[in-house]
Amino acid sequence: MDEITQLSGQVTELSYALDTFYFLMMGALVMWMAAGFTMLESGLVRAKNTAEILTKNVGLYSIACIMYMLVGYSIMYPGTHEGAIFRSLGTIGSGLLGSTDNSAAAVIASGGDTYYSKLSDFFFQVVFVATAMSIVSGAVAERMKLWSFFLFAIVLTGFIYPVQGFWKWGGGFLQTAGFQDFAGSGVVHLCGAAAALAGVLLLGARKGKYGAKGEVFAIPGCNLPLATLGTLILWLGWFGFNGGSELRLSNVGEANSVALVFVNTNMAAAGGLVFALMLARLWFGKADLTMALNGALAGLVAITAEPLTPTPLMATLIGGTGGVLVVVSIVSLDKLRIDDPVGAISVHGVVGIWGLLAVPMTNDDASLGAQLLGLFCIFFWVFLTSLLVWFLIRLTAGIRIDEEQEYEGVDISECGLEAYPEFTSAE
Amino acid sequence: MDEITQLSGQVTELSYALDTFYFLMMGALVMWMAAGFTMLESGLVRAKNTAEILTKNVGLYSIACIMYMLVGYSIMYPGTHEGAIFRSLGTIGSGLLGSTDNSAAAVIASGGDTYYSKLSDFFFQVVFVATAMSIVSGAVAERMKLWSFFLFAIVLTGFIYPVQGFWKWGGGFLQTAGFQDFAGSGVVHLCGAAAALAGVLLLGARKGKYGAKGEVFAIPGCNLPLATLGTLILWLGWFGFNGGSELRLSNVGEANSVALVFVNTNMAAAGGLVFALMLARLWFGKADLTMALNGALAGLVAITAEPLTPTPLMATLIGGTGGVLVVVSIVSLDKLRIDDPVGAISVHGVVGIWGLLAVPMTNDDASLGAQLLGLFCIFFWVFLTSLLVWFLIRLTAGIRIDEEQEYEGVDISECGLEAYPEFTSAE
Amino acid sequence: MDEITQLSGQVTELSYALDTFYFLMMGALVMWMAAGFTMLESGLVRAKNTAEILTKNVGLYSIACIMYMLVGYSIMYPGTHEGAIFRSLGTIGSGLLGSTDNSAAAVIASGGDTYYSKLSDFFFQVVFVATAMSIVSGAVAERMKLWSFFLFAIVLTGFIYPVQGFWKWGGGFLQTAGFQDFAGSGVVHLCGAAAALAGVLLLGARKGKYGAKGEVFAIPGCNLPLATLGTLILWLGWFGFNGGSELRLSNVGEANSVALVFVNTNMAAAGGLVFALMLARLWFGKADLTMALNGALAGLVAITAEPLTPTPLMATLIGGTGGVLVVVSIVSLDKLRIDDPVGAISVHGVVGIWGLLAVPMTNDDASLGAQLLGLFCIFFWVFLTSLLVWFLIRLTAGIRIDEEQEYEGVDISECGLEAYPEFTSAE
Repeated sequence: MDEITQLSGQVTELSYALDTFYFLMMGALVMWMAAGFTMLESGLVRAKNTAEILTKNVGLYSIACIMYMLVGYSIMYPGTHEGAIFRSLGTIGSGLLGSTDNSAAAVIASGGDTYYSKLSDFFFQVVFVATAMSIVSGAVAERMKLWSFFLFAIVLTGFIYPVQGFWKWGGGFLQTAGFQDFAGSGVVHLCGAAAALAGVLLLGARKGKYGAKGEVFAIPGCNLPLATLGTLILWLGWFGFNGGSELRLSNVGEANSVALVFVNTNMAAAGGLVFALMLARLWFGKADLTMALNGALAGLVAITAEPLTPTPLMATLIGGTGGVLVVVSIVSLDKLRIDDPVGAISVHGVVGIWGLLAVPMTNDDASLGAQLLGLFCIFFWVFLTSLLVWFLIRLTAGIRIDEEQEYEGVDISECGLEAYPEFTSAE
Repeated sequence: MDEITQLSGQVTELSYALDTFYFLMMGALVMWMAAGFTMLESGLVRAKNTAEILTKNVGLYSIACIMYMLVGYSIMYPGTHEGAIFRSLGTIGSGLLGSTDNSAAAVIASGGDTYYSKLSDFFFQVVFVATAMSIVSGAVAERMKLWSFFLFAIVLTGFIYPVQGFWKWGGGFLQTAGFQDFAGSGVVHLCGAAAALAGVLLLGARKGKYGAKGEVFAIPGCNLPLATLGTLILWLGWFGFNGGSELRLSNVGEANSVALVFVNTNMAAAGGLVFALMLARLWFGKADLTMALNGALAGLVAITAEPLTPTPLMATLIGGTGGVLVVVSIVSLDKLRIDDPVGAISVHGVVGIWGLLAVPMTNDDASLGAQLLGLFCIFFWVFLTSLLVWFLIRLTAGIRIDEEQEYEGVDISECGLEAYPEFTSAE
Repeated sequence: MDEITQLSGQVTELSYALDTFYFLMMGALVMWMAAGFTMLESGLVRAKNTAEILTKNVGLYSIACIMYMLVGYSIMYPGTHEGAIFRSLGTIGSGLLGSTDNSAAAVIASGGDTYYSKLSDFFFQVVFVATAMSIVSGAVAERMKLWSFFLFAIVLTGFIYPVQGFWKWGGGFLQTAGFQDFAGSGVVHLCGAAAALAGVLLLGARKGKYGAKGEVFAIPGCNLPLATLGTLILWLGWFGFNGGSELRLSNVGEANSVALVFVNTNMAAAGGLVFALMLARLWFGKADLTMALNGALAGLVAITAEPLTPTPLMATLIGGTGGVLVVVSIVSLDKLRIDDPVGAISVHGVVGIWGLLAVPMTNDDASLGAQLLGLFCIFFWVFLTSLLVWFLIRLTAGIRIDEEQEYEGVDISECGLEAYPEFTSAE
């Protein structure tokens, strides 16, 4: 009998170890999405603004990690369970963490209710925050002051994001209301897009983007292999983003669920890419690579709200619809003179909304009402607070570089160096 | 007694979860190979054809996923076991997948015979198909019509590949005949190379590649850091390709096997790179980076047929021989005026054959006869059907862009944009 | 009773499989660091020296794997346990490895003392050696003969590194003396930096780096997106580097430890980046991207000696201090006319020392005395033997390319090709 108890404890510990490991690997994949956004955005801007967007991306990731550790995590998960770990996160000293994470005895006593390390949860959550903030950097590219952007990053990752994150994932009112958002089409992607939209509206378009007579001028990205690499990195990272959001792996049902999430995530991206590419071919007469890339990302955003209930074919179609929407949205935003150099608002905002609204099609626990409630609350909370913050920054430090700096490129004025000093010297 | 049964069930479920997770992580690494091929090929073509090869690569990956879901998987694995999952893959609706993947009760009842999620198997298989198709895109680069290429991708990934995949991995006659191909030197790499060869023969060489008097002119790749990155991505992804092909991890023997496969895969690549670099140095007088990269890939292809029975030193030598062969093959194909811009036919075809023939040296279950039977069947099936399909496409849509488009670069005519608009404007 | 024994054995095997899998995945992440160094260094040199640095990086990785297999591993781990596996590694033939890795019976009999595959240990260790050697290539960039570099790589990876690795990780005198170095701030990073310093001192600075009157001229890197990508790859890979160095995962305590290591590794990098970027802004007036990247790497090196005992906030500060030190060090080394094109000696050497000295702040088992002993032994062993080897190579094959080759770029003279033939032709 005693032997069985001991063995049973060992199995529970092993199960905990597997779930923690799964969580950490999924988190590492999401961290890798930071490289995806960095490459995507640096490929889609002009050479003269490349070093700055690189700096923004690595900087915002770091700021997000620090702010979420210091305040964000405790806002989003205020329960005592997480409170203890938070107090350790923000402590200078040694040895505190070991004693605040779950003990083997507590895990065994919980009978499987405690099934992964608290710190692995923090790791997974912190890379999500960085993802949300990454969405912003692309939309405001090529014309925003670097340090004003960082200032905004501090507020979004430390306060704005965690509050709405709490509403859903921390057990707040959206969770209670039945709002369904598996991995964050709303909490992460729409959140990032709403903050980006607020910034873009206050910032205005890049010089030369829109003509006096309503013309829209293309400003091509300088390095499409990097943009493609970025998309493929995001595609890979999204297996962690969606796959890890199942939160558990260690029995047959959970393992099957994670596998289905992987398959559906992949199929939605494929569907988004193919539909966007075909639409671009029919509409513009050309197989526009940047639309294809945005189509894949749209597919990924679309399936993020619910990757577990659709069949793979259905996931392909949900993603494919995202791919169609993103092309239409990018063209439409340009008509509205909302200048988003990388299409982030379309990919993460418009398609994020599509993803949320598509959930009731396959998930019987979802209702259109709850989905609408969730998306309105998230959008208006993030949009309005962001607008306020951007506005305050504009009043004080300013948000837009001056015209000469914009002409010459923000790399020189903000970073004091060029991204490609030898390749563009012929100009 | 009851407690033991329950605990035993829990262990079986945990084991299933670990094997499924392992399969999914290996599959994610193979998916990552899509980025490897994309970077490799975009680095080895000229700037003016870069956007198109990027589009081809992301497009073919997406097409492969969709076609394999719709028809390929059920052709390759026609048994009832997989049939059920297939019927769900291709169904619009919700909730079907959950009921067709393995139930916990069935897993426990199987006594360990059912040890991973059916959907994780589909995920792993689908990224293999994409790999096979990726091989083709490099060989036909810089001169093929984009949409004709996609048409071919539909046929290869939906039909040609799955048929020969069935012969070996679906339990067909090559499996019965004792043909050994652990992870697909034949089924994946030779398959891709045979399809590429058929395309290249019908397509002809790029303008300016071969002179009237038999001269071979080098057409250097425009971005060698990307080609190097692509190679290293493939190297990493190959741990999933070969490591996942063990299919199981969850006991001491299987875990040791997976570890050995990782070690041998790494050593074979290292051997291929060093041997190719040394041969290039001796033969051409220069440490030719592109030969070194192709040497590493050759090492990887060579070990793919059997990464489990060689010792690490033997794996180094099998890979090293691949590295020598690839250099000789690339030079020889140019003499035959078979124009393969990235060396894909040499890396995946010639060295794929070497890999298959090397199996009997270390695996006593293999015979030269069965290996020859396998390679001939795979080669001729894929080569002849591909030749027919390429021929039909040439008759109808055409496969080659016109001369002016080729001169100006296929990016403008097919994609309507440039990959590096600021870096090459000085021309 | 028998059933329990059988079940217990199954659990032990499953545990072994999980630990082996964890080790392999962490090793794969460390292997991926090879791509990180390759991209980082190729982004920070000039276009004309890019193909050569790419060749160096892929070549040194391959050489490191082969040399460590042939001799290094047995020098570093000379015990009978590892001896058996080594003798198989270096054997031509088949079937030997299977019989030398742990048998299921031995694993079960060990009662958990034997918990991962010997080959997974070899895989993890071999990618560490390559990391150490990668550090050297950046410091000697743009002026060293390729094959002389490879000659040095053979000696470092086969002999110099394994000897000091044995002192600590093989159970040698530094281990006995209480020297603490969790994942190798000393054994890997200081080792690489010491070898690099010896090479740089004998090699001299690049032409045009330092003026006659003590001026320091910036020689900007040609491709900062690649340098940024390289940094993010290293950041990801470091989760494997530090996370895998816990060596075990399969119970609650170990899983918590691995999670804490992931969190602290991430926070230290974030801290290093932010502190370096802020210091650069204050000191130089610009948000210098290359300093930010080196700051992140410095944070990672700093936490490598002890990622398990600090709290996350403490880890941020340890990394942040590394970020400050690296900026100061890079400026100082230039004043001393020690020309290190990528800052490798500062990142891995100066900050490696900081990491070692910071251990006693949070780890009560560490003493300043033992840390000093370790760092002096490692530094002087590696520095002096490297100096001797570089000197012997200089006497015979020579280490520096001639002046004309340096002016024209080492790509043409060493590799016979250009990395970006179309982008720099305007010069």
